[in-house]
Amino acid sequence: MRLSEAAALALATRLLEEHGATRDHAALQARVLVTAEMKGHPSHGLCRLPRLVERMERGLIDPQTKGTQRWRADAVLEVEGSAGLGPIVAMAAIERLAPHIPDLGIGLVAVRNANHLGMLAHYVEAIAAMGLVGIALSSSEALVHPFGGTQAMLGTNPIAIGVPTAEDPLVLDLATSIVPMGRIHHHAATGRPIPDGWALDAAGKPTTDPKRAKAGAIAPFGDAKGYGLGIAIELLVAALAGSALATEVHGTLDSQSPCNKGDVFILIEPSLAPGLPTRLSAYLAAVRASPSKVAGEPVLVPGDRARQRRAAASRNGFEINQSLWEDLNALSPSRILVFEGQRS
Amino acid sequence: MRLSEAAALALATRLLEEHGATRDHAALQARVLVTAEMKGHPSHGLCRLPRLVERMERGLIDPQTKGTQRWRADAVLEVEGSAGLGPIVAMAAIERLAPHIPDLGIGLVAVRNANHLGMLAHYVEAIAAMGLVGIALSSSEALVHPFGGTQAMLGTNPIAIGVPTAEDPLVLDLATSIVPMGRIHHHAATGRPIPDGWALDAAGKPTTDPKRAKAGAIAPFGDAKGYGLGIAIELLVAALAGSALATEVHGTLDSQSPCNKGDVFILIEPSLAPGLPTRLSAYLAAVRASPSKVAGEPVLVPGDRARQRRAAASRNGFEINQSLWEDLNALSPSRILVFEGQRS
Repeated sequence: MRLSEAAALALATRLLEEHGATRDHAALQARVLVTAEMKGHPSHGLCRLPRLVERMERGLIDPQTKGTQRWRADAVLEVEGSAGLGPIVAMAAIERLAPHIPDLGIGLVAVRNANHLGMLAHYVEAIAAMGLVGIALSSSEALVHPFGGTQAMLGTNPIAIGVPTAEDPLVLDLATSIVPMGRIHHHAATGRPIPDGWALDAAGKPTTDPKRAKAGAIAPFGDAKGYGLGIAIELLVAALAGSALATEVHGTLDSQSPCNKGDVFILIEPSLAPGLPTRLSAYLAAVRASPSKVAGEPVLVPGDRARQRRAAASRNGFEINQSLWEDLNALSPSRILVFEGQRS
Repeated sequence: MRLSEAAALALATRLLEEHGATRDHAALQARVLVTAEMKGHPSHGLCRLPRLVERMERGLIDPQTKGTQRWRADAVLEVEGSAGLGPIVAMAAIERLAPHIPDLGIGLVAVRNANHLGMLAHYVEAIAAMGLVGIALSSSEALVHPFGGTQAMLGTNPIAIGVPTAEDPLVLDLATSIVPMGRIHHHAATGRPIPDGWALDAAGKPTTDPKRAKAGAIAPFGDAKGYGLGIAIELLVAALAGSALATEVHGTLDSQSPCNKGDVFILIEPSLAPGLPTRLSAYLAAVRASPSKVAGEPVLVPGDRARQRRAAASRNGFEINQSLWEDLNALSPSRILVFEGQRS
C-alpha cells in the first residue's frame, strides 16, 4: 500500500510517544526511519519500529534520555548513551559540539551504549546543513566475514561522509558489508533469495537462502580493500568510543540485550579558500556530465539517487508492505484499549 | 639484483643530498621510498627517485622547505607546502600538531602544494607510534573513472588509518582505485599486461595494455561503493585543504608542473577506557585465528603482510630491477661504484 510522508511521520511519532518518548524525541526518531523509506532503503525504515517499541517496553531503550555528555578534551565530547534512542543521543551531542567548531576547526563526538542510529546519512546531512564537513562511523554485531575468512567477525561498520558545496552537499553513506544486514532480513521477510556472493551460511559455505545467511556471515564489499576498511572502522570506533568490539556487541537487532556498540562523529570547518564551495559543485557537475558507460544512465554522485527518491516520495508517497502497516497499527495502545473495552 | 636496506637508504639519501636536500630531509624522503620497497610496493619505491631528482633540478621541488604553517583554528594547522618534498612538509606539520593532541583530543593538518607523499602508511604508522589514532587522505591527478562512467575524473585518492593497540598497530593503506597508477606504470616499465577489469583506454574501452591504460582510466575498487568513497575523499581533501580537484591536479607523475594536490591528516587521542589497547589487540588476534577460506592461508589484518615483508627485507634485503639500479647510479654526480660493493 502507498503511504504519504505526513501519514508515516504521524503514525511513527504517535507509536513512539505512546510508548514513552517525548514528542521531540518521537518526532526525530520517526523522521530518521521515514526518511530511509523515502530514500528507498526500507531495511532501515519503518520495519525497525516494532523492534524499537519492544525494546522500549522491556526497558532496553530509555526514550527520554539524551545520554550523559562529558568533554574528554577541548574538542572531544564523550557520551554515555544510557540506552537512549540512537538519533536522540547523537543529535544532542552533535548540536552541543557544533557551536565550538568555528573556534576549534575540528571536533569529535564519541558515543557508547546508545541504540541503533538508522541511516548515517541523516547525521552528515545535518552537519552539512550547518556548513560543516561531517564524517560518521558506527559499529554493530559481528555479521561480516573477513576477506579470506568464513566466520562473522566484523560489524557491517558503515561510514558516511558529507561535504557541503555551493549546491547540494555530497552525501556518501555505505556499509562496509556488501549489503547491510537489514537487506538480508528484508529478503527473508519477503521470501526472496539473495544473490550469489552476498553471504556464507553458518558452516562457511556460500548460500542464497536469506535465513541461512542470517545465521552465517555477509561478505565484505570490495574484497580485501572493503574488508580492510571495515576492520579499520571496527577498531577506530572502539578505540575512540571505548565501546565493545563486533564479537561482543549486542542490541542493534535483538530484543534481549542492552546496545553496546559505538558511534563516532567528526565535524570539520572547511577551508575558507575563496570560491571553494563553487569549485566543489562545479566539479561534481562535471563528473555527472562525464561520458557514461550505458547510454541513458548518467554518472551519479553519492547522494543523488537518494535525493531524487526522497523528492518523489515527498510528492507521491511511498509503498509499504501491507502486513507491516497492520503490525504497526496493532502496536498502538489506543487499539489495545479497544480490545480491553471489548473484553469487559 | 638484491639490495640491502642500508645500501638502499645510503644510495637514495646521497642522491637527494647531491641534488640539494639537507641531510635530514634526504634521509626522511629516502626512508619513505625504501620502506615501500621493503613492504613489497616497488611502485611507490625507488622508481620514484629519478622523477623526484628531475623535479628538484627543474625547481618544481624545493627540497629545503618544510612549507609555511598557520593555525587556521585551535585544532587545525593549515600548511602551504611551497613545493616542498611531500614527506618533509607532512611530518613537520604532524610533529607540530601532535604535542597539542593531549589537550585538544583531536586535530587536523591540511596541506596544499606539497609533492608526492609516497605510501600513506608511513604517516599513520608514525602517528600510531605516538599512541594516537591517525587518518591520512590524499588526492591526485584524475586517473580513475566513476562507477558507470568511462573517463578519468577522480584521483586514486588513497586513505590510510592507523590504530594503536597493545601490540602492533592496525595499519590500513589503500588506494580507492582498483590498483594504484604506480602499479600500471610498473607493468608498463616491465612489459607485462594488466588483468582484465583494471582499466579502460582513452576511448573508454576495456584494455589489458598498460600503455593504453595510462592514457585512459583505472577502475575504482568495489564498484559503486569504492567509487563513492573515492569521490568523497576527493571532495573532503579539496574542501579541507583548499587544493585543486582531480581534473585540475598536476605534478605527482610529471616533470613539468608544480604539484597542487592536497593532503589531510587527522590525529586523535584514543579513549582512556581501562584495558582498551589489550581488548583491541585481543580482537585482532581472534580475527587472525578465525577459520580461513583456504587451508594454510590464515586470515590477515591490514598491515600484517607489509610488516612481515618489511622484517624479511630488513634481514635479507630486497630485489630491485637492474636497470633501475643503473639509472639511479647514473643520476649521481659522483657516480657510485662504492655501492656496488654493498650489493648483497
